[in-house]
Amino acid sequence: MVGAARNIEPPYFAVIFTSQRTEGDKGYEVMSNKMVELASKQKGFLGIESARDRELGITISYWDSLESIKSWKENSAHKVAQDKGKREWYKNFSIRVCKVERHRFFEM
Amino acid sequence: MVGAARNIEPPYFAVIFTSQRTEGDKGYEVMSNKMVELASKQKGFLGIESARDRELGITISYWDSLESIKSWKENSAHKVAQDKGKREWYKNFSIRVCKVERHRFFEM
Repeated sequence: MVGAARNIEPPYFAVIFTSQRTEGDKGYEVMSNKMVELASKQKGFLGIESARDRELGITISYWDSLESIKSWKENSAHKVAQDKGKREWYKNFSIRVCKVERHRFFEM
Repeated sequence: MVGAARNIEPPYFAVIFTSQRTEGDKGYEVMSNKMVELASKQKGFLGIESARDRELGITISYWDSLESIKSWKENSAHKVAQDKGKREWYKNFSIRVCKVERHRFFEM
């Protein structure tokens, strides 16, 4: 989903999730798709962008407020995925909560 | 570079660059590596994280201030790369300037 939150005027919020995976899928792909679907139904969700290569994965979700981010963090199905992530899928990860102050989109 | 800006207490700043590429390399790889090297020598640079798959590329650079971001944007070698990006490498891209309000790092 390129150009997520394109129609929203800043400020809005972004959660930057970067991770390094362990070897093997172990149910990751299915759960990952499920989480994107679930997130997109949450109140205040504005879009998601994701890329992964051999070294690193980056997923950025966009939200209308810190309250919406908090609700998503505490969603029970998401909590199950978070626990599984810590136990099985990730070697390490980081989470950053950011306020998007300005944006520009370019189409060539 | 996972855990970029790990030793820096928020707030600091992030530039989220997402893009879809045109077909073929056309000098992209060499220029991309050169830009990372150049950025890392700029005043106020705190780190960079990047991932690309078939659909999307995401690069996030971290900075100590909006002034440092502005200086990097106006760096002359970087400007040449920006122009070439618009002409040859990208189908579309977006740039978001964000204030990182909090972060957490996890090692399993």
